[in-house]
Amino acid sequence: MNAPHMSPDEFRDAGHRLVDWVAEFMHTVGDMPVLAQTSPGELLARLPEHPPESPGGANEWDDIVRDLDELILPAMTHWQSPNFFAYFPCNASGPAILGELVSAGLGAQGMLWQSGPGCTELEMRTLDWMAEAVGLPDRFTFRSPEGGGSIQGTASEATLVSLIAARARARRTAGGAPVTIYASTQAHSSFAKAAMVAGLASGPDDHEAVRLIETDDDLAMDPAALERAIRADLDAGHIPSFVLATIGTTGTTAIDPLGPIADAIDRACAESPRPWLHVDAAYAGSALVCPEFRWMSEGVERADSFCFNPHKWLLTNFDCDLFWTRDRRALTDALSITPEYLRNAATESGGVIDYRDWQIPLGRRFRALKLWFVMRHYGLEGLRAHIREGVRLAELFESWVAGDERFELAAKRTLSLVCFRLRAGDAATRDMLDRVNATGRAFLTHAALPDGQVIARMAIGATATRERHVREAWALISAEAERVLAGHSA
Amino acid sequence: MNAPHMSPDEFRDAGHRLVDWVAEFMHTVGDMPVLAQTSPGELLARLPEHPPESPGGANEWDDIVRDLDELILPAMTHWQSPNFFAYFPCNASGPAILGELVSAGLGAQGMLWQSGPGCTELEMRTLDWMAEAVGLPDRFTFRSPEGGGSIQGTASEATLVSLIAARARARRTAGGAPVTIYASTQAHSSFAKAAMVAGLASGPDDHEAVRLIETDDDLAMDPAALERAIRADLDAGHIPSFVLATIGTTGTTAIDPLGPIADAIDRACAESPRPWLHVDAAYAGSALVCPEFRWMSEGVERADSFCFNPHKWLLTNFDCDLFWTRDRRALTDALSITPEYLRNAATESGGVIDYRDWQIPLGRRFRALKLWFVMRHYGLEGLRAHIREGVRLAELFESWVAGDERFELAAKRTLSLVCFRLRAGDAATRDMLDRVNATGRAFLTHAALPDGQVIARMAIGATATRERHVREAWALISAEAERVLAGHSA
Repeated sequence: MNAPHMSPDEFRDAGHRLVDWVAEFMHTVGDMPVLAQTSPGELLARLPEHPPESPGGANEWDDIVRDLDELILPAMTHWQSPNFFAYFPCNASGPAILGELVSAGLGAQGMLWQSGPGCTELEMRTLDWMAEAVGLPDRFTFRSPEGGGSIQGTASEATLVSLIAARARARRTAGGAPVTIYASTQAHSSFAKAAMVAGLASGPDDHEAVRLIETDDDLAMDPAALERAIRADLDAGHIPSFVLATIGTTGTTAIDPLGPIADAIDRACAESPRPWLHVDAAYAGSALVCPEFRWMSEGVERADSFCFNPHKWLLTNFDCDLFWTRDRRALTDALSITPEYLRNAATESGGVIDYRDWQIPLGRRFRALKLWFVMRHYGLEGLRAHIREGVRLAELFESWVAGDERFELAAKRTLSLVCFRLRAGDAATRDMLDRVNATGRAFLTHAALPDGQVIARMAIGATATRERHVREAWALISAEAERVLAGHSA
Repeated sequence: MNAPHMSPDEFRDAGHRLVDWVAEFMHTVGDMPVLAQTSPGELLARLPEHPPESPGGANEWDDIVRDLDELILPAMTHWQSPNFFAYFPCNASGPAILGELVSAGLGAQGMLWQSGPGCTELEMRTLDWMAEAVGLPDRFTFRSPEGGGSIQGTASEATLVSLIAARARARRTAGGAPVTIYASTQAHSSFAKAAMVAGLASGPDDHEAVRLIETDDDLAMDPAALERAIRADLDAGHIPSFVLATIGTTGTTAIDPLGPIADAIDRACAESPRPWLHVDAAYAGSALVCPEFRWMSEGVERADSFCFNPHKWLLTNFDCDLFWTRDRRALTDALSITPEYLRNAATESGGVIDYRDWQIPLGRRFRALKLWFVMRHYGLEGLRAHIREGVRLAELFESWVAGDERFELAAKRTLSLVCFRLRAGDAATRDMLDRVNATGRAFLTHAALPDGQVIARMAIGATATRERHVREAWALISAEAERVLAGHSA
């Protein structure tokens, strides 16, 4: 037999049908349970045990669409539901979905400039655009001979590549003593994971090289504590090589103060090489498109690298983490597998970027397309409007919590995340969340404060969320809280 | 203003239009230059310097489609061209593109079972399907309580996660002495890069922990040399922790012999813990869907992990690396950031898989959908037909080279890659390749043999390639060779 490749016409017909299916999904996802109401193994039991031997045949798209509806959709936790308030949002949007479609259709692989000049140069330009959009200084852009940005899969990967670059740079300037790395106790778990991958920790509780810096009352890193930690390590002969600051922690959106952190580093390292300062703004970075939130990034010009995820709150499908550095040479020195003597003049001059040397994998998709589509469709004005609406809805929700004596706000609200709890305590707060999530009508996740207190997180910002969804969620939370409090007092 | 989110109807209209654009692209890509005929900076100069302030407006899809045609397409190296014979193929296909579309439309994030039960369980099942399809033993599947598979982005990431798991396992069983790792001199550069990322090498030429094992005349790893290297390291007090064997090297598709390699490891480590054996079958693994090629993987049951890339030669868009292990606990022990005491019973029982602990990033796309669509559309019969046609065309090309006295075959052909050169030497071979690529009518890349000889690589297997494209490429190669030889002899 010949392989049954789809003809362009067959692709067109099936493509229209699946576009229609996605459009219908957008229309109806708000009516589906948000948190999947399925048990472990339920989908597995409904899927054939063995792979299909024969091609799908004439009715295959009927069969596939039916299975999408009957098997897959009920097994999904619906991140695109307007009632999704869990984790942080993971925005999809029409233009981004279409960018993924075109990227898949082109099927290009932009590991090198040569293997995808269009992939590379569109990415360079959209990264410069977005740097301008969020107010990053020119030193992080390709306008600088030493800076520039790239698309990474996730903020985890941005943390890892900057850590690798930092370690290599520290080794070159400071020699072979043990390196030490720093982040606040509230930093994302990917910091600990990067340390494990890089061989700096044997597990999440190994602190031989990893320093977790204490935080202030708002859960932001305490620069004085950082300074003390760096000084102590220098005194012990270690090489402080990497500091991770977070703009918008995962738990509560705490903002590590970049300027005071850079001051602390400068003071501690007055007579030794400065560690690399990486800023993880995975969630909160999207808000920097609005000038009124740029106070969060004051001092960013003193950082070595910065990242945020348009795939969280800026309408660009996962995966799209934007990562900028002002020392791209440190990155390629640490990650290039081309020996120095084989590098070409074009790469060294900055005229050609080979993005394989900016990341862990070799291959890469053409992800700049979806970012380009999003920026063109929304314009900066539209992106700002999306952010501002999320913040407005969070303020509204916050006001309801503050005005209800059963509840209390559990952390300072900065953007579109509201942290709250029942005054009745941890068990009641957990019960309330479990009940809300079990209805399928909203999905929120929890976090724990450093003192162990359980808090509920209302993370607003899904593409489809409107004021009525937030109102309905509050009504639901309120009703389930009432039931919990009745039960707990009974 | 409100953010101009697309309504489902607007999405449907634009989606149909872009599906049509992709269908037209499939129809015409064969007429476009394969290697981009563009200079560094050319696209950059044609893109606006600043991001758009306002939304795209009523004509935005006219504008975007025009820019795709006029700006992006001419700047692409066309991996989906039927005349693409460079690197290895990077297959796209109709069903895979539609899988990406649906995945983007659902916008789910399957980091945890809870955050995407459907993502997780469809991935588990399609990985078990594909294990069966390529003849992997049950110990690599979820039928085993200790095994299972996952989708990684690339084989580079599979190498890195298995190396991290191997190192952690070695540390647990053998203590804190320096670990050593092994691959042949022909292993992919991602081996050296993984060592750098993991902190085992300061650069590609640092061999303090990295051993490159010599190869035989067919460029396959020499098991006796591996055994000697492991024994020497054991004698020196090192901990041999990781051996990478390649089925189908990037340069010439050499096949490292798994059984003899496992024997060598067993002999060397009769009295010490065995290192982790990872098999990188990135390109050649696709051919294992055909029983007649399973000789390549004889002995794979003795490996600890195995990967191959359907995104290379099995019709599933990049990124789709399939990675199986028979010790998934070693993986999660090395990569989980959840402390032991917080693990839940469901995860430990194997009833629930949290794929975040199988990979470097935290988040993940719903990539199983495209694999599912491909396996349903083609069936195993269709996949085998695609592989066999690629091999048949390579045999044909090989016969033409062998029958032409100007040329010589430069390495044993195993599958669909033909390595050849001009008898006139390296400069002539390079010139011929440059001339062929400059025409835009075909694109081939080169490699270097261990003795430094330059070879041309004819990698067949793009989805759209048919016999006439291979014939036309040979005619072009032949004509350009004639010109080169005329010039060199002049």
